[in-house]
Amino acid sequence: MLDRLREKIIEFRDLRDWEQFHDPKNLAEAIAIESGELLENFLWKTCSDSRNLSSDAVVSIGEEIADIAIFLTILAHEMNLNIEEIVDRKLKLNEDRYPVEISRGSAEKRP
Amino acid sequence: MLDRLREKIIEFRDLRDWEQFHDPKNLAEAIAIESGELLENFLWKTCSDSRNLSSDAVVSIGEEIADIAIFLTILAHEMNLNIEEIVDRKLKLNEDRYPVEISRGSAEKRP
Amino acid sequence: MLDRLREKIIEFRDLRDWEQFHDPKNLAEAIAIESGELLENFLWKTCSDSRNLSSDAVVSIGEEIADIAIFLTILAHEMNLNIEEIVDRKLKLNEDRYPVEISRGSAEKRP
Amino acid sequence: MLDRLREKIIEFRDLRDWEQFHDPKNLAEAIAIESGELLENFLWKTCSDSRNLSSDAVVSIGEEIADIAIFLTILAHEMNLNIEEIVDRKLKLNEDRYPVEISRGSAEKRP
Repeated sequence: MLDRLREKIIEFRDLRDWEQFHDPKNLAEAIAIESGELLENFLWKTCSDSRNLSSDAVVSIGEEIADIAIFLTILAHEMNLNIEEIVDRKLKLNEDRYPVEISRGSAEKRP
Repeated sequence: MLDRLREKIIEFRDLRDWEQFHDPKNLAEAIAIESGELLENFLWKTCSDSRNLSSDAVVSIGEEIADIAIFLTILAHEMNLNIEEIVDRKLKLNEDRYPVEISRGSAEKRP
Repeated sequence: MLDRLREKIIEFRDLRDWEQFHDPKNLAEAIAIESGELLENFLWKTCSDSRNLSSDAVVSIGEEIADIAIFLTILAHEMNLNIEEIVDRKLKLNEDRYPVEISRGSAEKRP
Repeated sequence: MLDRLREKIIEFRDLRDWEQFHDPKNLAEAIAIESGELLENFLWKTCSDSRNLSSDAVVSIGEEIADIAIFLTILAHEMNLNIEEIVDRKLKLNEDRYPVEISRGSAEKRP
């Protein structure tokens, strides 16, 4: 599925000849910008408000999540990184970093 | 694959009883924070430098991409959004917004 | 006071010969990165938690605010913009955009 | 000057009864969001492009710098922090961290 998405995204990009703009620095900027747009949907709301959103808000948030996922996919592609592999590796690192017995129920440490 | 990753990520999260912290507002903040950490890898570099990175830098960038992918997956899960569906929908929207004939080779408009 | 700060900041910068790295694009990235570090101080907290912080947290937040102020000052300097003038201008714009009678007590619109 | 700006900004805010929304967590989010909007002005540009901007772009960037300065001022005010003091303190810290002899001309370390 990730492969299928990546193929569609890269095909969309290459048809428009946008590879020339997609150096990793600019892609990382695009991800930061889209993250700001995602966050804007929650500004001036409380945390519990954010668990009860209108269906319009959900659609708008879905679009921002998609934008981030698209640029993340392109960045990984440009750097020859396989998202499935790096997520698996990070989850293993996090298992060592946040052992269940110590981390359970505590927000002291991310994630 | 996306389903398998989501299951692993949510299982990791639920074992630590972290669902209580994962309201959409805080998850959007986490994504913005990780995007800043990703971007830090490119700070004070030129765009073309960013196409020629050391293997250490690639590993570090891979970890940040993974962190963003993990929080994005959790946020979509909390909002009952299917990432594959919303990316498909966004690509369709972008096809209308950036017709190939007009957008080819032009960075005027994102993405 | 703003002038005195700007002079100190630019003197600090020029003594280290860092002007070469301080193009506006990289400075805007630095501000986004520092904003992420500022935000990290509030992650997994509720809004009301964020009104009751430890004195350690206040010191750490103060450092991030200072970092952002420093880069903002350098960016304005590089672009020949006077912060006092552009803030005055923006407040005037906001007065038109958010008339007191309409905006009072409503978070619908930023800021 | 900073005092005068702060007074104008807080007066603008209090006339609209917006203090209720301005907890530090939301203010830090606002700063991150505005930083993203600032950065958007440089997306898909090279670093050297960003030293040669149209006058329209400069106006637009000036507005984003002003937005960040406004929210930074409110956040410092809410936390009883004096921006002049914390910038002075940070510059002293940075003097120790980046001695002129070692840091001159090197972007290894921020800022």
